[in-house]
Amino acid sequence: MTREIRLNALDQCNPSFLAFGLWSHPRDKALDFTSIDYWADYARLLERGLFEALFLADSLGVPDTYKQSFASAFRSGALAPSLDPAVIVPAMALVTKNLGFAITGSASYETPYLFARRMTTLDHMTRGRIGWNIVTSFLRSGALAMGRDELAEHDARYDAADEFMEVMYGLWEGSWADDALKRDKASSIYADPALISELDHDGPHHRIRAVSAAEPSPQRTPMLFQAGGSPRGRHFAATHAEGIFINGPKLELVAPQVTDMRKRAAALGRDPRSLKFFAGATIIVDETEALARARYEDYKRHTSVEGMLSQLSAALGIDLSKYPLDEPIRYEKTDAAHSQLEILTRKGSWTVRQAAESMVVSGRNLLVVGTPGQVVDELARWVEHADVDGFNIARILAHETMENFIGMVVPELQRRGMFKTEYAKGTLREKVTGAGPRTAHDHPASTHRR
Amino acid sequence: MTREIRLNALDQCNPSFLAFGLWSHPRDKALDFTSIDYWADYARLLERGLFEALFLADSLGVPDTYKQSFASAFRSGALAPSLDPAVIVPAMALVTKNLGFAITGSASYETPYLFARRMTTLDHMTRGRIGWNIVTSFLRSGALAMGRDELAEHDARYDAADEFMEVMYGLWEGSWADDALKRDKASSIYADPALISELDHDGPHHRIRAVSAAEPSPQRTPMLFQAGGSPRGRHFAATHAEGIFINGPKLELVAPQVTDMRKRAAALGRDPRSLKFFAGATIIVDETEALARARYEDYKRHTSVEGMLSQLSAALGIDLSKYPLDEPIRYEKTDAAHSQLEILTRKGSWTVRQAAESMVVSGRNLLVVGTPGQVVDELARWVEHADVDGFNIARILAHETMENFIGMVVPELQRRGMFKTEYAKGTLREKVTGAGPRTAHDHPASTHRR
Repeated sequence: MTREIRLNALDQCNPSFLAFGLWSHPRDKALDFTSIDYWADYARLLERGLFEALFLADSLGVPDTYKQSFASAFRSGALAPSLDPAVIVPAMALVTKNLGFAITGSASYETPYLFARRMTTLDHMTRGRIGWNIVTSFLRSGALAMGRDELAEHDARYDAADEFMEVMYGLWEGSWADDALKRDKASSIYADPALISELDHDGPHHRIRAVSAAEPSPQRTPMLFQAGGSPRGRHFAATHAEGIFINGPKLELVAPQVTDMRKRAAALGRDPRSLKFFAGATIIVDETEALARARYEDYKRHTSVEGMLSQLSAALGIDLSKYPLDEPIRYEKTDAAHSQLEILTRKGSWTVRQAAESMVVSGRNLLVVGTPGQVVDELARWVEHADVDGFNIARILAHETMENFIGMVVPELQRRGMFKTEYAKGTLREKVTGAGPRTAHDHPASTHRR
Repeated sequence: MTREIRLNALDQCNPSFLAFGLWSHPRDKALDFTSIDYWADYARLLERGLFEALFLADSLGVPDTYKQSFASAFRSGALAPSLDPAVIVPAMALVTKNLGFAITGSASYETPYLFARRMTTLDHMTRGRIGWNIVTSFLRSGALAMGRDELAEHDARYDAADEFMEVMYGLWEGSWADDALKRDKASSIYADPALISELDHDGPHHRIRAVSAAEPSPQRTPMLFQAGGSPRGRHFAATHAEGIFINGPKLELVAPQVTDMRKRAAALGRDPRSLKFFAGATIIVDETEALARARYEDYKRHTSVEGMLSQLSAALGIDLSKYPLDEPIRYEKTDAAHSQLEILTRKGSWTVRQAAESMVVSGRNLLVVGTPGQVVDELARWVEHADVDGFNIARILAHETMENFIGMVVPELQRRGMFKTEYAKGTLREKVTGAGPRTAHDHPASTHRR
């Protein structure tokens, strides 16, 4: 039997994400993304489909590499606007009981004390259903927005992020002993201060002297997600992540990444099976293959090429407007670029047209267009041969993509015994990893426990 | 006719606020404060009572002046623990249509770009019902938690806050022209980049170069609240605040503050009537005065003196444990201390016992214990003679205090024509000030409009 798969929905608090420009499709409802009811409805839908979590990406700053301007991003609504994912979560938590929420937070720019408290508050308010997608934020415009002189170098961002994690673990795991919280009305003792201690950290990137004022939440450290594609990013993920978001349109490109990262985790003393891999997937499903293909063609017609090139230029740090469409692009193979495009082509060279065509609707995701049976065949093949644990299903149209997936693909997955028919008990960590609610004993967070 | 009054509920995301120790009362439900349903129920209750807003205070850091330790704060649950008020708002917004939310945010420690975006997201998700209580954060432990060497001087904190406001206005009002947002499916144009501009600010306290990625929300600048008692704090409030939270147990202490601040606002070119003053009020009401008094005595028995002295020591910057109970305390009359205690006593000297007794259950609020008629008489007297526009009603017990107030006091206020019977239309600013939804033409935010 193929092993059980896990599903997250992949989205962002903006009008179109990955499927750039699709907000303009007549059936799309994403223009309502500034409404809290939009998100509440979305959460109810995902819980009906037994999704583990809504994975909310984020961008800090606005892409402005393409034509050296933010114009394309705003005109096409591609990554701009972008709202704060953290504050929409509790409304979704109120109308669901099991759905988790993996929100993106920047280890480069958040203030450690405030961020730790916000995540603890969210973990309380969701009853342990919060996850954190750790990013280091790659936009130069984001760095300037934060008052920095320049975007820090790629690997240096990860060094600072490692230190940020140390501080988080200190606050979440180290500050309160397990039995510090009393809440005892009879004695009027709320907490035993002898069991609460101060964190005193003075490092190259962060300084903090604080006792956590946020009483421990169900998971303490939220379930940790990461999506590092570069060697340094993979090392970071292998160290800290419990859920890993992995990209690539072809099984042959993804499988070696999974193998590599499980190996890295093992080398760091972690159980490599405790890391759960989610491959980004764009699924276009209908009752017949012809209908599904027609859907795809329809979606394509609403794609914004300008939005795609704006996002891609920012991600690569190359202004693609400078190149004729069919001329091979020469660029330095930096770590950051590595994870972005080479993976699409496995070639040393590519043209703007090739890049654009390869990203239409699905970005760097696995794309499957077909019947429920065909979709499940392909997902099963990935689980078996790429060794992934599940998929991050990307939104194309709100809420059509998820409605179709839940209406057609989920029943087929269940019929084949590849998907649960009810939620497991417990926190997000317990549901996704099968262990928990606290980080595993071989996870670095656990070494900070008192 | 006495003029119409406006009401906010005054609370904090912690077990007991002002009425320290009352979480231990058998009927109190505040131990549920870590649950999202607690807040959703609370919001529904306040909307039933036609409250303008839930005003959420906040503490960054933990009081540690008393006995030079945070022990008292945690033991008594006084200002510690303390969770993030921002992230609980959308859940309350989902179950209400009119209630506003004035959340506390630190102009000393928040990162401008991230904070502006969070508030814009909240203003969207509440459909224009968000307010911001601007604070500069007075706890030294908060400063150390943020990686600072020391707490900045009182007036210097306000100088930095003035600059923080400039940055906020620049992002909220100056970045997007009114017609920049298109959201036009036919042309696939989301926003017109020619009508969006970059903020480039380089000041002594803040540096930022950014275009706002958060599309304009109904109010743009959230309705601004402040509670500055010191001369510098009053100047700040007179400059920026639209709603002012004012403290003092006696009318004669509050009235001159209101007069002074309206005068300061006028001197700054603002319509002094556009500033709305809310006096902190602790109301203990029952059908007879004897029953109300019995309630008060019952509440007193659950007060934590340790919690009060912990909070007060931190606010004054004086370790009150060093003084015998009945010995007059000598201290330097700093700006910060000024707003805290002299106002209670109007005396040059006071003892720890006097301070503690004057703060039991009600802190520095107006305290009224009596029948609905007696309560309304006193509120009316304050509106007439202290020139306040309304009250911030403090929670003693969750949710008993608000249930009693709404069940007994609100109908009596309505009977006398002093309180609305339904909500006004529009955003929080429109409801509270009668103008809006944007800041008034004489408000400094408005000068940043394009």
